[in-house]
Amino acid sequence: MRIVDWADETEGGPAVVLLDQRALPQRTEYLHLGTVDGVIDAVRSLAVRGAPSLGITGAYGVALAAHLHGTGTADARAAVRADAQRIATARPTAVPLSIGVRRALAALEESPAGVLAAARAVADEAATINAAATRRAADLVRERCPDRPLRALTVCNTGPLAAGPGGTALGAILALHADGVLEEVLACETRPLLQGARLTVWELQRAGVPHRLCVDSAGPAAIATGRVDVVFAGADRIAANGDVANKIGTYMLACAAARSGIPFVIVAPEETIDPDTATGADIVVEERGADEVREHGGTLMTLPGTPVYNPAFDVTPHELVTAIVTESRAWSPAPSASAPRIAASPH
Amino acid sequence: MRIVDWADETEGGPAVVLLDQRALPQRTEYLHLGTVDGVIDAVRSLAVRGAPSLGITGAYGVALAAHLHGTGTADARAAVRADAQRIATARPTAVPLSIGVRRALAALEESPAGVLAAARAVADEAATINAAATRRAADLVRERCPDRPLRALTVCNTGPLAAGPGGTALGAILALHADGVLEEVLACETRPLLQGARLTVWELQRAGVPHRLCVDSAGPAAIATGRVDVVFAGADRIAANGDVANKIGTYMLACAAARSGIPFVIVAPEETIDPDTATGADIVVEERGADEVREHGGTLMTLPGTPVYNPAFDVTPHELVTAIVTESRAWSPAPSASAPRIAASPH
Repeated sequence: MRIVDWADETEGGPAVVLLDQRALPQRTEYLHLGTVDGVIDAVRSLAVRGAPSLGITGAYGVALAAHLHGTGTADARAAVRADAQRIATARPTAVPLSIGVRRALAALEESPAGVLAAARAVADEAATINAAATRRAADLVRERCPDRPLRALTVCNTGPLAAGPGGTALGAILALHADGVLEEVLACETRPLLQGARLTVWELQRAGVPHRLCVDSAGPAAIATGRVDVVFAGADRIAANGDVANKIGTYMLACAAARSGIPFVIVAPEETIDPDTATGADIVVEERGADEVREHGGTLMTLPGTPVYNPAFDVTPHELVTAIVTESRAWSPAPSASAPRIAASPH
Repeated sequence: MRIVDWADETEGGPAVVLLDQRALPQRTEYLHLGTVDGVIDAVRSLAVRGAPSLGITGAYGVALAAHLHGTGTADARAAVRADAQRIATARPTAVPLSIGVRRALAALEESPAGVLAAARAVADEAATINAAATRRAADLVRERCPDRPLRALTVCNTGPLAAGPGGTALGAILALHADGVLEEVLACETRPLLQGARLTVWELQRAGVPHRLCVDSAGPAAIATGRVDVVFAGADRIAANGDVANKIGTYMLACAAARSGIPFVIVAPEETIDPDTATGADIVVEERGADEVREHGGTLMTLPGTPVYNPAFDVTPHELVTAIVTESRAWSPAPSASAPRIAASPH
């Protein structure tokens, strides 16, 4: 079952089916959403999150509206458009959500089946892109590190939950596991929001991949002590020069990987590379609320009102990046002066 | 008021007075311990912790026994010795505790006042050592970074609570604050046990030092983005070549400091340097229990039974260390090839 999927009439549908991410990792529950309001509630309440999953949800939401209202009359189509507008704005800042909605809506003149086909295409395209990028990344790492079962380290959550069908960085790890060349994954917990502990561990356990969880600061130490062969991370935004903005904690892993001479590999869709952002210095890093840091599991663990520095992302300079792997290429942005490190086998 | 102190008759004593570290950071409570059993309970229950504080507690505990039993007869002295033995073994692995006990007991033939004087000497010596090391470290950093109010970053807790009167790394920061040259301290929360969030923040607030708390992985990012002028850390053990074992997370801060060309300074008593440990490779790193990582504020934040990698310490190689500052010297263990980084002013 995908994270976001469509159930047709024979499955009790038409309905949008979602894995409820709010219940993870303790409970695996699917929502069967037969109304547009249900889809909107799910989006608003973060039952579904992650850019690709939101885009797919938006597209299937429009398909649901088309099935419920029909598309045969101007009134029916107007009703679908009104629902689509409500879906697209359920989370105002989620651009992929509105893109998914728009792509499904483009088939409105055809039929409900046509709208559904357009929605399926949104999902399939995400799956195709991720499959190509993760396969390329896995092959690159197998070529660089041919000597032993691999021990991979990753940060945050870049599996299907967050990154769409197949995942990105975690998808490459899953591909190595499917290839039978993976020994273990070390998953950084990813403070403050613990996407590693909550989501990556859940995805790894579900996929039957051997893994251990560690606090974030143990990641660089694990690398330094020879416990890691390759680091995989996703990307939120990549500058034209190859500087990578990603979850806070990515930079220190890249520093440690460079010092220990192991590959540091970014896996992300090509669209993550922003040609209008010259370097990482042009990327504004969002600072988030203080309670994320002050509280642990809902319990205050420091003095009330303690001031906090809580950047959501950091920027890894391109000279620390072995390769940025997308659906269309493997790009090594490091200058040639750094090449010896990158060319060297870690074994 | 010190973390561990002696109260004489006029203060309601004789008694050992302890800041109850179990209540921190939410409540500041002192225990007034008028019985040897009370002292032993406090040690066992971690109301007092940190090597120097345990040593001082042990010494004052013997002074308390001497005051309660007297020292004028063989029977009285035997009773004091029996109590001393119970105190020394209250935490079997805490060597400083038994050293403190032994030093106070050495004055047993004199008088209760003599035993108390010996105990006070244990406390005073720790204070003298820390005062010398922290003053030297503060002066070193002022010399290296003369251009602006300093922004210091630190990890774990190395203030008076853990490191004895005056503290070590945090003590150097407090000295810079007293000098009026400190702008801000960034305190890493120090997962898994959050000594930074719970104890360092409490000590900084109590001392009136401007500070912010951050997740550990934000430390390297803060350094890379020019938000930090100097990193201070303590040490659990220092090898003969200058490799430093300290709380997990220290290594990544040293990597980031080296990349950004800012000083990375260790403050520790000379006795931390172990001539019998040639390099960091000879230091066995303790791995601790899984629940420390799985749980946050007592709440399970990952799947039950998730395997965990939980090293208590990491080893920072000497080439990343700008200076190891003790009560008797400032030692730069980095080879001369690394000197340009160390000599360069970060401003």
